[in-house]
Amino acid sequence: MSSVNADIPRVTEVVVVGGGIAGLASAYALRRAGAAVTLVERAPEFGEVGAGLQLGPNATRVLKQWGLLSKVIDVGVIPGNLVFRDAMNGHEIGRQALDETFLDRYQAPYVLVHRSDLHRILVEAARDAGVTLITNEHIDRVETVGNRGIAYGAGGTTYEADLIVGADGLRSALRKHVSDDEPVRSGYVAFRGAFPAEEIGLQEDLEDVIVWVGPQCHFVQYGLRNGSVLNQVAVFKSPAVSRGEESGPEELAAAYASCVPAVQQAMTHIWTDRNWPMYDREPIEQWVDGRMVLLGDAAHPMLQYLAQGACQALEDADVLARLAARYVFDGNTHNSDGWPAAIEEFTAERTVRTAEVQRRARAWGESWHVDGIGRTLRNELFSRRDPSDFRYTDWLYAPRS
Amino acid sequence: MSSVNADIPRVTEVVVVGGGIAGLASAYALRRAGAAVTLVERAPEFGEVGAGLQLGPNATRVLKQWGLLSKVIDVGVIPGNLVFRDAMNGHEIGRQALDETFLDRYQAPYVLVHRSDLHRILVEAARDAGVTLITNEHIDRVETVGNRGIAYGAGGTTYEADLIVGADGLRSALRKHVSDDEPVRSGYVAFRGAFPAEEIGLQEDLEDVIVWVGPQCHFVQYGLRNGSVLNQVAVFKSPAVSRGEESGPEELAAAYASCVPAVQQAMTHIWTDRNWPMYDREPIEQWVDGRMVLLGDAAHPMLQYLAQGACQALEDADVLARLAARYVFDGNTHNSDGWPAAIEEFTAERTVRTAEVQRRARAWGESWHVDGIGRTLRNELFSRRDPSDFRYTDWLYAPRS
Repeated sequence: MSSVNADIPRVTEVVVVGGGIAGLASAYALRRAGAAVTLVERAPEFGEVGAGLQLGPNATRVLKQWGLLSKVIDVGVIPGNLVFRDAMNGHEIGRQALDETFLDRYQAPYVLVHRSDLHRILVEAARDAGVTLITNEHIDRVETVGNRGIAYGAGGTTYEADLIVGADGLRSALRKHVSDDEPVRSGYVAFRGAFPAEEIGLQEDLEDVIVWVGPQCHFVQYGLRNGSVLNQVAVFKSPAVSRGEESGPEELAAAYASCVPAVQQAMTHIWTDRNWPMYDREPIEQWVDGRMVLLGDAAHPMLQYLAQGACQALEDADVLARLAARYVFDGNTHNSDGWPAAIEEFTAERTVRTAEVQRRARAWGESWHVDGIGRTLRNELFSRRDPSDFRYTDWLYAPRS
Repeated sequence: MSSVNADIPRVTEVVVVGGGIAGLASAYALRRAGAAVTLVERAPEFGEVGAGLQLGPNATRVLKQWGLLSKVIDVGVIPGNLVFRDAMNGHEIGRQALDETFLDRYQAPYVLVHRSDLHRILVEAARDAGVTLITNEHIDRVETVGNRGIAYGAGGTTYEADLIVGADGLRSALRKHVSDDEPVRSGYVAFRGAFPAEEIGLQEDLEDVIVWVGPQCHFVQYGLRNGSVLNQVAVFKSPAVSRGEESGPEELAAAYASCVPAVQQAMTHIWTDRNWPMYDREPIEQWVDGRMVLLGDAAHPMLQYLAQGACQALEDADVLARLAARYVFDGNTHNSDGWPAAIEEFTAERTVRTAEVQRRARAWGESWHVDGIGRTLRNELFSRRDPSDFRYTDWLYAPRS
């Protein structure tokens, strides 16, 4: 303990492990609910790699309630439509208007934002709200002693709190306390790119999210930062990744060889020095071990086809903070004995919800990647969508009672 | 020629080769149009193997116009609905009402009839109309000399006519005059059964056509002969047939192992001593060689998923007879020089139509046999069908201008 700065509140109400979107959001929301919160991040500084992020109204409703939505919109884009095109022939096969009707129905907009912008907004909000932010500290084990959670840092430091929130991502170290499962490799890999629209001489405007769907591949295009940046994501079944090896740019071109020229040409604006193999996990039944609870990707990593990874983390933070407010921070006296009820109820509610999102994300992705008769059925089904029929989005976006 | 009975008109206007449904229908229709017709069948007597047959309104409109529909209905069934069920979970996934609205739209009913009953009605109609029916004569070659077609019997007999109609089925001997293609093996095999409903103690009534669709298999059930007979067809991907060998009853049980008990139990009423490997051919562009024209399965064999094999043969006969009436039999003088124009126009019209049916039959069957995400998409698409939307049947059943 001698290595720790004496200013750091190592004994507090909540310790959040992990400074990604899930950790920051839950730290901020719990702080708003009244908790004293310390957030511990492994990396030397806060930051996010990646490119664009799509926020459905289930997530932007949370940001709105937290007073952060306008900041996000200021650096984001509200797209006009979500457009699906068949990557093999270029035909539009479906369209979801993200217009006034959508906004009215779901009480918040669909927003596109750079992952690093959202992350920065959450860092600032947490810091401004009084969350203690610690970097360069890896928590690899948690223990419950009596009614307190103890988080053990790799360097020997310990943190003690009423609740430890494990928000340490896909490869969560803390998940071992509730499950011995492993991430599930999908065999798909994402290549991304975000380029200034001016620099690349963009022809099309960036009003819509365009999703080109093809056999074992898809390609997503949309604007970021008020339309000044073109964000693109190329996702395909990688032979290398399927073998457990690393993918590379040579696979990228091959994966889209049967797609229309518009898609193949777009590959010139994809980063080739980095790629993201895609994983999720099977849903598990509970995320609690004593005074520790998992959330975000640590609890329910999902494939990105519904663009719900960050969104579900925001929902997690919102639900946990509401339950904390009810069971723990109801009044001036903090009732720390309320935490077990809060996290049990949190887990009961959120495991069901996120398991459905995990399951549907897989199926939704599969429906994009079909070929042959599956492609025929998919195109026919997508093209039959009635714009006034929200049955495919209500389950995900509608306010939950 | 010494072997031929002197009564047989070996020099006539039309010789039809093949006494199946296509041959009989075209012989009857051409006779009605005014032609002197001789029909030559290879088998020792007229007859049909098989079980039930579904006649869509595109076929029953033809039968109605020929004055044969009431005879067919007298020995058939008019079903209430065409019902699709998922064979894996038993859920109904779609339903086509064959009710008054359907009848009004297509101007004729959907009718189920035993193949041998339809065949017998056509034999009687052809005979009563004055078609000369010859059995036990195999025509394996045709030649055009001047403006006459010569059909050569395997036994040395020749037949001479203005037109030779090749209606000799899937393995047509006469098709070699227009194409050197071969039947395409689908790998699927059909087992059939037709059992008295009383004998098998049938629980369900036989009002509907039930199609159970499953991965690489389906199962069809409907009533025949005023509901006194249960007709069943089990169609599945046969490992043996795929290898070019014969299927057998041991494959039948295995193919439906993952289906609901209702389907598995129904297999007790399937004939096991006979099965039908399923073939079609690729569409070809023309069916005419001099004074010979192909029709029916000889011209456009198709997979049975749309139940259109016999129906398209009836359409063929109707169209050919109409064109013959226009070009050849217009008035009292038979203009035999009109035949080339009649069969060219026949081929131009019918190749396009039947190629579409061949192509769509394959895709329709594929959509029944999918698994995984394809099954999810299929079930969703089928279940979204609006009963007032006839887009999936108009192309096939609506009267053609």
